[in-house]
Formats: sequence, structure tokens, C-alpha cells
Amino acid sequence: MAQKSIALIVTVDTKEPEARFLNEYIEAQGFKAPVIDVSTKNPHTYTAAYPRELVSKLGNVEFEDLKNLRRDHMMRTMGEGATKILLDLYAKGELAGVLAVGGNQGTAIASIAMRALPIGVPKLIVSTVASGYVRPYIEYKDIIMMFSVADVLGGANTVSRTILTNAAGAVIGMSQYGIPLTKGEKPVIATTAFGNTDAAVNQARVVLEQKGYEVIAFHASGASGSAMEYLIEQGYVQGVLDMTTHELLGEVFGDDIYTPLRPRLEEAGKKGIPQVIVPGAIEYFCFGAPDSVPKKYLGRKTHYHNPYNTNIRATKEEVVETAKVMATKLNKANGPVVVMIPLKGFSENGRQGNVLHEPETDAAFIEALEQNLDARIKLIKVDANINDKEFSEKAAEVMHSLMTSK
Amino acid sequence: MAQKSIALIVTVDTKEPEARFLNEYIEAQGFKAPVIDVSTKNPHTYTAAYPRELVSKLGNVEFEDLKNLRRDHMMRTMGEGATKILLDLYAKGELAGVLAVGGNQGTAIASIAMRALPIGVPKLIVSTVASGYVRPYIEYKDIIMMFSVADVLGGANTVSRTILTNAAGAVIGMSQYGIPLTKGEKPVIATTAFGNTDAAVNQARVVLEQKGYEVIAFHASGASGSAMEYLIEQGYVQGVLDMTTHELLGEVFGDDIYTPLRPRLEEAGKKGIPQVIVPGAIEYFCFGAPDSVPKKYLGRKTHYHNPYNTNIRATKEEVVETAKVMATKLNKANGPVVVMIPLKGFSENGRQGNVLHEPETDAAFIEALEQNLDARIKLIKVDANINDKEFSEKAAEVMHSLMTSK
Repeated sequence: MAQKSIALIVTVDTKEPEARFLNEYIEAQGFKAPVIDVSTKNPHTYTAAYPRELVSKLGNVEFEDLKNLRRDHMMRTMGEGATKILLDLYAKGELAGVLAVGGNQGTAIASIAMRALPIGVPKLIVSTVASGYVRPYIEYKDIIMMFSVADVLGGANTVSRTILTNAAGAVIGMSQYGIPLTKGEKPVIATTAFGNTDAAVNQARVVLEQKGYEVIAFHASGASGSAMEYLIEQGYVQGVLDMTTHELLGEVFGDDIYTPLRPRLEEAGKKGIPQVIVPGAIEYFCFGAPDSVPKKYLGRKTHYHNPYNTNIRATKEEVVETAKVMATKLNKANGPVVVMIPLKGFSENGRQGNVLHEPETDAAFIEALEQNLDARIKLIKVDANINDKEFSEKAAEVMHSLMTSK
Repeated sequence: MAQKSIALIVTVDTKEPEARFLNEYIEAQGFKAPVIDVSTKNPHTYTAAYPRELVSKLGNVEFEDLKNLRRDHMMRTMGEGATKILLDLYAKGELAGVLAVGGNQGTAIASIAMRALPIGVPKLIVSTVASGYVRPYIEYKDIIMMFSVADVLGGANTVSRTILTNAAGAVIGMSQYGIPLTKGEKPVIATTAFGNTDAAVNQARVVLEQKGYEVIAFHASGASGSAMEYLIEQGYVQGVLDMTTHELLGEVFGDDIYTPLRPRLEEAGKKGIPQVIVPGAIEYFCFGAPDSVPKKYLGRKTHYHNPYNTNIRATKEEVVETAKVMATKLNKANGPVVVMIPLKGFSENGRQGNVLHEPETDAAFIEALEQNLDARIKLIKVDANINDKEFSEKAAEVMHSLMTSK
């Protein structure tokens, strides 16, 4: 077998010794280790396999013009240049993995390029900013981040020697032992879950697995719902039981901590695969600790899920607006769609006796949906809470019937 | 060589199929893969190498009493039990690495145990919450986190098969190719850096490297300064040029985004190694985006470092309070300490002509320090900005003189 490549994304102007060290270390283990230089600033004399002039040009900017760009545009340019290089190596079957070392800027650039690769391709960033808020880098991909502990500067030292060789070892190990993403034999049903809709998802899962499906659940956490949309787009999913469409509320109003990173309820429609849509947990916003709740949401019905998760009732206007957006998206679907409504509450929180129970607001949501959905889209009402078996098993049955009648 | 262990930390009650899958997969590669069951809730029949009853007991609570504890206490108990198991395996030389799979709770428990291990021991958590704010899990250690993409439930499926085998491969690869943390031949000088004190650190580094030291820089980001304290405690550092003591401001007032995770300016004193202390960037607070600045800091002199980093001048009262805390800590040191003051500004921001320049406040800091430092601690004033060579090279010379006269 020809040697495969572990691509190294490094800002060579500040990290030349690290680029050299990793290049030599990985080559000594039998891989190619081409350096993609994404530096933008200081002069240096290192000859990278992919020099920064090339990277910049692939990002559609001449290197000498880069300095005139705003910092974010500059970073995007280098990220897009590196993306093209990685996708080319991947397409040729030569890419065993990607390793990057970066501070703020290097991490951002590397993550742009890594996010363009399929899930399963080993990708790791040694980063000074890994012990913090990393969603902007990872989004909904399997980029792994390793805190650099100390600064990564001036060449391998007592600390960075260990960190860098561990990082290289991790990428090598993933390339040697990891099983790439492949379609299985069973048809895949993707579903979406929340603590508050957990029973519904588990009950539906049992029914669907008995019928021979592989069920993959995605937490409606913004990142995972987005990952589901991505995997649908990539053809890994044959049907969607979207039990917890909560993320749509964040998509419409922006404030929710589980706001998705790409539009929800769209890819299944584009692919034309069967969808069963349920307004699970769409009746409340999720915020972090109570003192992080934006002022405009204060004074409403509130459920303190745990110290780091505060659930706040959405108003009639908000759910009606969300229903309209949902209908618009579903009306565009190329495949079969059924909407299923649990009349006794869209979540455990919304059940009678619980604090977010507000049937008149739920009714407004349902009415708006009925008014805006195309006639061809069936809306089934079940006189039960989402977590009652009566509802969830019915949802699974409807899903199965769509799968078999398509 | 006897088979080494890759320990698996899993809540078996919800993730038994994943525990079985990883155990078999890793054993097939020639490692032992003992499961440490940290589950607390649902019944199950799996026989883990380390059953949860044992883990709980090692955490000083009988398993049957666990359910009476608050959730955080319950998690801490299982985390501490797992810690003892890992440290025992490590002490016996049997631990090749640690792999965990978890949601919110599983991630928190696993991270407690992993943080107790030395830097360099491979540690990876596949987590549903990895694409978010991960500092509470990582703190200042080299725990690597991998976003699970989908939920990790119900056994290996199209997505989790790839994620889990990549994760296992990463830990195996680190154990095979990583170089453990070891002391080098050169004496190590640790130093602390910030964008705004970068020139000072680089100039001092050149001087010290010429004199034969290995210089390791730590970003004063809360996590890295804490890592420095840890590495001093562990004996990897022979001298400290604490050029950027900014984190002390966060330690005293709490609000700063770079608040350290363990006390600063303490371990060097306990070890009795030489220290040169500089009030680098101690004159301003760091916050995130402008709209995240706490109300009490609004209306002060502000430097907009970048869209995600807002620097706000500390008041006279605040710097005086910080100087007193600094003096109290340094007075306890068992080794030689010199404090060096750049009279023309503690950072680039604080230089004449820049927005945070406020010499009368700097003077109050210096005065408070002089009043509170023990007589045996020398305070050297240099009529320069911290980033002027006149200051930084002098600081390096003083560091060297302390190292050679000890």
C-alpha cells in the first residue's frame, strides 16, 4: 500500500519548530506528513509541502493581498485554501488523518478545513483554547480537541513533546484502528431526543427496532440536531422520526442555548425520505443558569430543570410563528410527511400538572400549523402526552407505514 | 511485556452495549480493557471488572446509600471511586490509557477521575456535550474530548461504530506513540504570557535560552496559568519568571474570564524555587464580547482587543487589593523572590498613549506592594514599559542570577 498522509495544519511563521518536529515524528512512523502552512504574517524560510502562497491562492486571494483583509476574512481565506487541499487528498484516497496545532487563530483556521471532511476521518487540534467554549470550532463534527497545557512555541520542550507526540499518536491510532463511516445493512431511522421526551423516543425505538430498523437518536442540543441534518444530506438516513423539534424554536428566535448550527427540518425534505414530525419540546426555551436568562424571557412560567438548565414557556405569538416556519419547511418536502400532535403536552414539562402546561398555547400552535400546512400533509392528533405509549408507539407505526409504502 | 490496560469508564446502566463493544474491540487489539462502572441508577446484570458497588465504596459511600445523595455529591462519589482505581493501575505501571463514554453526568464523573492522572497519560472522553463549554471537564489537564455526533445509546450503529472505534484507536495510538512526560536535561524556566506582554516574554526567552535554560511559556488564560502551578508542584519547573500575573486579578475578584482554576503564585513558593514576579497585565480585567461585560465594570476605560475580548481598567482599590494578596503570597515563599516593576506600563495596553494608561493607578499598586512585601523581598523598578527590552532583558538577567546564586 502506498504511504498515506497525515496532513499537518500549522501557522509556520510562529510554529516552525513544531511543524518540523511533527513532520519528522510522523514520517518516522511510516506516514507522509505534508505541512499545510496557514500562516499569514511573519516571514519564514521553511518550505512547506503546501506553502502559504498556494493555500491563500486556493482560498481565492493572492498572498500579498491577504494583509489588506479583515482578520476574519483572512482566516476564512486560509481555511478555505486548506479545505481544498484536504478534500483533494481525501478524494484521492491518500488522507489518513489531519492534525493541527494552533492558538486562537490557528485553531479557527484548522477547524474550517476539518469541518469540510466527512465524519470518521481522524481530525485533531492541539489548541491553547481547547479548555473553553469550543462549539465554534467543532460545530457538529467529530473534531477532537486537545488542550496544549502550555503554549506551543519554540519547539518541543518538556511539556509539548508529550502533548504533540500523544496528539500524533492519537491520529495514527484512529487511522489504524478506527472503522470508517459506512452504511449498514438495516435501514436507518434518525430520531431526536431530549430528557423531557426521552420516554417517547425509547418507546418508539423499541417498536422500530423490532421491525428491523437501526434507530439513531440525536439529542436536540443544537449540535446533534445539526449533525442529523448533515447525515441525512450525506445519505446515511432512510427515514426521520423527528420527535423533538425543539431546535426550531432557537432557529426562529435565536436566543435558545440549543439553537442549531444549520437549518433544521430541511434535508429530509430535500432528499425526499419519509418524515414523521412531532412538536416535541417546542413549547419552551432552554437557557443556562437562571442568571443567564435574557431579560425579555423573565417573568414567564419557568421550570428549573437543573442548576445549568432553565426552561421557559414560549408565548402564543412565538409558537404560532414557529408553526408557520415549520409548515413552510414541510410544504417544500419532496417526500412523504406526516405531522403528529400529542394533545396532552409536547413534553413532560408540558403535561397537565407540570409547570409549563398551557393547553391554550399548544392549541394556537396546532391551529397555525393546520392553517399553513399543505393539504397533502396529514396531521394526526392523538389524545395523549408525547411520552405516553399511546402516542409514541403510534408515531413509530406511522413511521413504519411511511417507510413501507414509499 | 504483560498486557497493559485501557480502562473504560462507562455508566453501564445506560450504556451496557457500548461498554461491551469497546471492551471487546480493545481487547482484540491486545490490551486489557477493564470496565469501571460509574452508573448510579437503573438495574443491570453486566459484570464489570470494577462494579459500581466497589466504585461507590471506594468513594466512601455504600452503593445503596447513593440514591439519598444530591446529584453532584453522587457524581463526586463515583468520580472519586474511579480515581482510586485509575491511580492504583497507574502506580502499578499497568495503565496504558483511559477512555470514557458519557452524556452530561458520565462526562462529569469520568473527568473527575481523569484529572487526577498525570499529564501525558492518554485520556479521552466521547461525549454528547463535547461541542460546548468544556472547561469544567478539562480544567488544565490534557483530557481530550470527542463529540459523539449522535447519542451513544443502544449499541454500535452506523455513526457510533465509527466514533467509538476512532476513540479507542486514539487512546491505543497515544499509548503506542506518545512520549510520556519526563524531565529533560536543561533546567526549566516557566513564564507566563499574554498578547499584551508577548514582546516581553519573547525577549526574555531569547536571553534565557542563550544561557542554557528550557523556557516554557503559559498563556495567562486561567487554564494555562493553573497548569503551570500544577507542573511546578509536580517538580517539572526549576524557576519561574512570572511575567504575566494577570490571573491574580481574576483570583481576587472572580469575574475575569481568565480566572485561574487553582491559586496562582503559590507552588513556586512552596517548592522554594526562584521566582521573578512581574505585574504583567494585572492592571485590567478581560471579558468576552462587549455585551458580556458585567454591569459594574461599564463606564471605565475600555480597550476592545477583538470582538471576543474586551479589556477594562481595574480601579485603584482593585489593584491595591490585588497587590496586598500578591504580597501575602510572596511573603510565604520558601525560596528567593524578586519583584520587578516596569514603571512605564504593565502591558502594551498600559503604555503611554494607549487607552488603559493610568500611571497614578499603577503607582498605587506599587505603593501597596512596597508596604506589604517583607523586607527580604527585593523590589526592582525599571523606568520602561514591560515590553521594552530594557525591562524584559533585565528581568531575564535577574532570573538567571537567582538561578545561579541559589
